[in-house]
Amino acid sequence: MLRKISILGSTGSIGTQTLDVIRNLKDIKVCGLSTNQNIELLEQQIHEFHPKKVAVMDEKKAYELKKRLNGSVEVLTGIDGLIEISTMEEIDTVVTSVVGTIGLIPTFEAIKRKKNIALANKETLVTAGQIIMEEAKKNDVSILPVDSEHSAIFQCLQGNKQNSIHRIILTASGGPFRGKSLADLQSVTVEDALKHPNWSMGAKITVDSSTMMNKGLEVIEAKWLFNVEAKQIEVVVHPQSMIHSMVEFEDGSIMAQIGEPDMRVPIQYALTFPKRYKNNWPKVDFTKRNVFSFEQPDLSIFKCLQLAYDALAIGGSMPAVLNAANEIAVERFLTKEIQFLDIPLMIEKAMEAHNTIMNPTLSDILDADQWAREFTKGR
Amino acid sequence: MLRKISILGSTGSIGTQTLDVIRNLKDIKVCGLSTNQNIELLEQQIHEFHPKKVAVMDEKKAYELKKRLNGSVEVLTGIDGLIEISTMEEIDTVVTSVVGTIGLIPTFEAIKRKKNIALANKETLVTAGQIIMEEAKKNDVSILPVDSEHSAIFQCLQGNKQNSIHRIILTASGGPFRGKSLADLQSVTVEDALKHPNWSMGAKITVDSSTMMNKGLEVIEAKWLFNVEAKQIEVVVHPQSMIHSMVEFEDGSIMAQIGEPDMRVPIQYALTFPKRYKNNWPKVDFTKRNVFSFEQPDLSIFKCLQLAYDALAIGGSMPAVLNAANEIAVERFLTKEIQFLDIPLMIEKAMEAHNTIMNPTLSDILDADQWAREFTKGR
Repeated sequence: MLRKISILGSTGSIGTQTLDVIRNLKDIKVCGLSTNQNIELLEQQIHEFHPKKVAVMDEKKAYELKKRLNGSVEVLTGIDGLIEISTMEEIDTVVTSVVGTIGLIPTFEAIKRKKNIALANKETLVTAGQIIMEEAKKNDVSILPVDSEHSAIFQCLQGNKQNSIHRIILTASGGPFRGKSLADLQSVTVEDALKHPNWSMGAKITVDSSTMMNKGLEVIEAKWLFNVEAKQIEVVVHPQSMIHSMVEFEDGSIMAQIGEPDMRVPIQYALTFPKRYKNNWPKVDFTKRNVFSFEQPDLSIFKCLQLAYDALAIGGSMPAVLNAANEIAVERFLTKEIQFLDIPLMIEKAMEAHNTIMNPTLSDILDADQWAREFTKGR
Repeated sequence: MLRKISILGSTGSIGTQTLDVIRNLKDIKVCGLSTNQNIELLEQQIHEFHPKKVAVMDEKKAYELKKRLNGSVEVLTGIDGLIEISTMEEIDTVVTSVVGTIGLIPTFEAIKRKKNIALANKETLVTAGQIIMEEAKKNDVSILPVDSEHSAIFQCLQGNKQNSIHRIILTASGGPFRGKSLADLQSVTVEDALKHPNWSMGAKITVDSSTMMNKGLEVIEAKWLFNVEAKQIEVVVHPQSMIHSMVEFEDGSIMAQIGEPDMRVPIQYALTFPKRYKNNWPKVDFTKRNVFSFEQPDLSIFKCLQLAYDALAIGGSMPAVLNAANEIAVERFLTKEIQFLDIPLMIEKAMEAHNTIMNPTLSDILDADQWAREFTKGR
């Protein structure tokens, strides 16, 4: 048996692809699953993967599922349910593919119980990078990145344990608005923002990709995952999304990881590391993928990326505020309450109004998160 | 002390760059040097690096140098001199940067004396890959590739000891005649062939690059170095020479090594592996190196590459014949005795006339080499 796992957020984009990977691998045992409220899909997953316990965040939906299953599987609910799924005795690894700050506490509790983390929840390291990495070190658990960019960096670092990183080159597709001016961006719609050129992802992360906040959050994650300074992380726009990221070492040699834009590859690597397993997914054909290009991102247009660098430079509770304000602003953009260019404006206002707490506790971080949500909702 | 080395061919392109790398590293002791006949440069190198012994292939030149040095350094000559340099008691590594089959025996003798090989001499593995790799395994020595392509592959394999190679993607600049038709190639001159777009190298290897025989020899080398089948090695033309080669693993993930076209990087990695050392050589700027493109090589035009695949498929002594016939054909092209397109024709004729010896001994290989030289000279 390769691993025994729980998946937090098994009905989302990463969650379903993780189960697809497991279908292909066969020797991974799924012990726990969770969903926010998609009990129809969760029920199908239960029948296919036979977890011992599942959690449904929504209490009413949890009750409905419990009735349907008639006691065959333990159904938990709320954040306590999520924590129970992430700390099950029999598992060695938790795939954290929930979206949002909700992932933080279950991940932290899992690390305390010495579970390895296959990390797909961006907010965990963005809001509490220092605490999480220290706890992981203390408990000698691995944080295995699932994000394609961080997986690429992680792959580039293999075989280079004795070598220090000179520079991380984090690639970005540039999203649907690459090359647009501020004037162009004034009139973009939700539908425009949801048209990602290369990746098929959830709505929130797709909007984050269009503002480049996604890349900003990845910069903050990379800082914690790979123990580098912000100035060592360079974002390069690479519209073809074929090079998933690169690492330059001190000798000037750059290692890069390349592949079709298919999240199953990094998901599988996180689950099987350090071994790679054969699969029948599409492979790169260089006669078709025959141009890779690179551009500098324009931080005066994609202000969210600049704000993320700023929040990282300030440190303490500020990245949590950046993240929470962004989450609410994106929500309000998706419901058409605000315009696309209001997203960075709202985040900037929240950051300006926040009194940063240095060396925050998890509770300080959750407070800052809550404060930024309320603040951004009320604007 | 990092390593104690001898350099075979210290006055050539790779040899002088190796010494440049050593200048930068400082903790490598140079014990032996050799040249074909450039005693002026060798004398300068002796004064700077203080080797204990040197070899000069040309006997008259050796005698001249001996007189000049007046006994301060031991001066050897001929193939025996080269062997003495490559097997010195005090060294742990030999850099084999001589051009031609002359490198084979000194390399073999060095391996028998348990010296690691920083391999820049293509002919060693092209002609005697099986014998050399078996001997290296028996003596537990490392063959550290110096060629930029093989160094790239070697770097991509680090951290993947448990993973088998699905495909090697060997990149080729395409040389000065990329995109040309057979009709165009009929009239090319020596001067045209010597204009390489990206790399500054010796004349023989520059012509090999223009015929793509260089890539063919690298395919054969890669087969032996990385223990793969010919069909697992795909040549992709990448005119910018920024990706030095790639490895695709079974999961579909491709690792690539990227850098400015500067031989000092792979030379240094071979000398310092697995550690990388800082240097002040130019680093990649993705705002300037902003397009990487890929094309399929046309084997009906660059017939030398097809001939190399053919020789590898036949095996035995045939790659030695390919290599020797090519060496003579290129020599004759450089002296304007034959036309550019005569090069593959002559090699093909030699291959057709050769009776392949399977599982050849070193002596069989040297005989086949000699035979192919005579045959190609007489055409």
